[in-house]
Amino acid sequence: MTNRQIVLQELPRDRLGPEHFRLAEADVPQAGDGQVLLKTRYVSLDAANRAWMQGATYRAALAAGDVMAGGALAEVVDSQVGHLQPGDLVFADTGWQDYAALPAKRLEKLPDLKPLTHLLSVYGVAGLTAYHGLMECGRPKAGETVVVSAAAGSVGSLVGQIAKIKGCKVVGIAGGAEKGAWLRSELGFDATVDYKAGDVRRALRAACPDGVDVYFDNTGGDILEAALFNMNIHGRIACCGAVSQYDGAAPPHGPRGVPGLIVTKRLKMEGFIVSDFRDKDAQALADMQAWVADGRLKVQEDVIEGLENLPAALIGLLAGENRGKRMVKVA
Amino acid sequence: MTNRQIVLQELPRDRLGPEHFRLAEADVPQAGDGQVLLKTRYVSLDAANRAWMQGATYRAALAAGDVMAGGALAEVVDSQVGHLQPGDLVFADTGWQDYAALPAKRLEKLPDLKPLTHLLSVYGVAGLTAYHGLMECGRPKAGETVVVSAAAGSVGSLVGQIAKIKGCKVVGIAGGAEKGAWLRSELGFDATVDYKAGDVRRALRAACPDGVDVYFDNTGGDILEAALFNMNIHGRIACCGAVSQYDGAAPPHGPRGVPGLIVTKRLKMEGFIVSDFRDKDAQALADMQAWVADGRLKVQEDVIEGLENLPAALIGLLAGENRGKRMVKVA
Repeated sequence: MTNRQIVLQELPRDRLGPEHFRLAEADVPQAGDGQVLLKTRYVSLDAANRAWMQGATYRAALAAGDVMAGGALAEVVDSQVGHLQPGDLVFADTGWQDYAALPAKRLEKLPDLKPLTHLLSVYGVAGLTAYHGLMECGRPKAGETVVVSAAAGSVGSLVGQIAKIKGCKVVGIAGGAEKGAWLRSELGFDATVDYKAGDVRRALRAACPDGVDVYFDNTGGDILEAALFNMNIHGRIACCGAVSQYDGAAPPHGPRGVPGLIVTKRLKMEGFIVSDFRDKDAQALADMQAWVADGRLKVQEDVIEGLENLPAALIGLLAGENRGKRMVKVA
Repeated sequence: MTNRQIVLQELPRDRLGPEHFRLAEADVPQAGDGQVLLKTRYVSLDAANRAWMQGATYRAALAAGDVMAGGALAEVVDSQVGHLQPGDLVFADTGWQDYAALPAKRLEKLPDLKPLTHLLSVYGVAGLTAYHGLMECGRPKAGETVVVSAAAGSVGSLVGQIAKIKGCKVVGIAGGAEKGAWLRSELGFDATVDYKAGDVRRALRAACPDGVDVYFDNTGGDILEAALFNMNIHGRIACCGAVSQYDGAAPPHGPRGVPGLIVTKRLKMEGFIVSDFRDKDAQALADMQAWVADGRLKVQEDVIEGLENLPAALIGLLAGENRGKRMVKVA
């Protein structure tokens, strides 16, 4: 038994490419005191994976030579602790490898849902990020206009649908006419803006004749700037991520309108990560399970097979090729 | 009887200068139905005066040929309404002129305090802006580090002192060694940073070894950027103004770190104007009166004589020459 690993060969200085990774093989580790040995089932692909290569965020920066980090749905195959047994499923930062021996203290047994992949999408970090960020930072009221960027992605596609359930008008920003059509026809978005088609600020104004009350920002950069100029007085911006800023050198400047528009429009911009709201996870999951069950919340997943395809899966995600939650099935 | 007026001759494209104003004379207007005739006593000078020349903010933009706008402490000399009598004092947007006839609906009689000038400083817009912005947007807790920019100005000098009263460590950012010495020795600031002396980001780090929990932003621009990089997780930024951005062409970019640092540090940036918190004015005034009475809140005022000196007073304020609340005594 060997442990295939994808190692971060070199930190990218500009765009991430396959040359920054290499496939390695190691022995399968053993679970030490207080640890479990995990078998990786599905690895979650997230724009944040790329941000971790830029420097310290809410976790330490990655370094050349590390097994690439990443969260995964994993199965316990050996346990040195009482609360987890072989066969149990957990969400853990296994990294991009077949097996990982990890401290079990913070790991929790997941329910055995069908399909299993929903544990990484709607009932995982993506779903909870969408729900908490929208509800706690965006605080949408029925009748308001909610805009979300990276709207066809794992988080954005859920944000827009939850905002619709809450009675809002929803506008999604996504790249390309096909994604826009899908968001409108399949997910019920009221309108979409194709950021690849030109002037986002003007297109957003046309799509939001009553202005923007809540902007859920997954991109940062020019799209955030376009939103700032369209915000209504007392609007809220939920700062979830900045995918436009991750895959390259650090951006030289922030968006225009900061802080001028924040002052004159009395905006609130608030950053969050999903773990800030752990005490509200149970309510979020109950709501989303009900909405999935009654068909109001559609879950789009993009599952790629094979550990060896992880680098290409991440590179493609950064280029916006996925719809919904991208993950790689390892075993 | 004539009405001297200072007219905005031309909108500035870059820095504001005396050539953008001219002195004019007009007849004294009459109070119409529902109006009062006001005699201007003290005109408030504010960085926002310059921002009004850039475009619409929370008020319509100024235009060439307008009497220059500005808030003032004024005395009722004729009244067509029941709730105001000759001799009453009000705060009103008289503009830069001896007399103005204005609708009385939103005007309230002010108490007859000594010194009268405190109605424009600590008990006026400056004091309420400092109090509400710090307490409602900054939400400082005892023991936290609070940083304020334009710290020697009308608002900043009060923000720092209120934060000290609330048990915080207070660091002020101001231009020049003299202002810094005054803030430390007279107003009790724990430390100061001279933004004219070079690397603000580094100096702020040295002055705030425990990081920054609350940043009260009066400047925007590079100083906001320096603060962003020194914020602690879950820090709050109260966006009050952007004086560094007003006196020139519109800035081409915002500060770096937006939204990246907002996300990773889960910051909250919130813009406000003082009238958003009118329902809390009574409490604010009661607190500040008590602190002034017991000597914990020192009020610094900078009173210039003569309506004709208004342009120079504003130009000087934008260059940072004042300490505390600048106003011009007209009558």
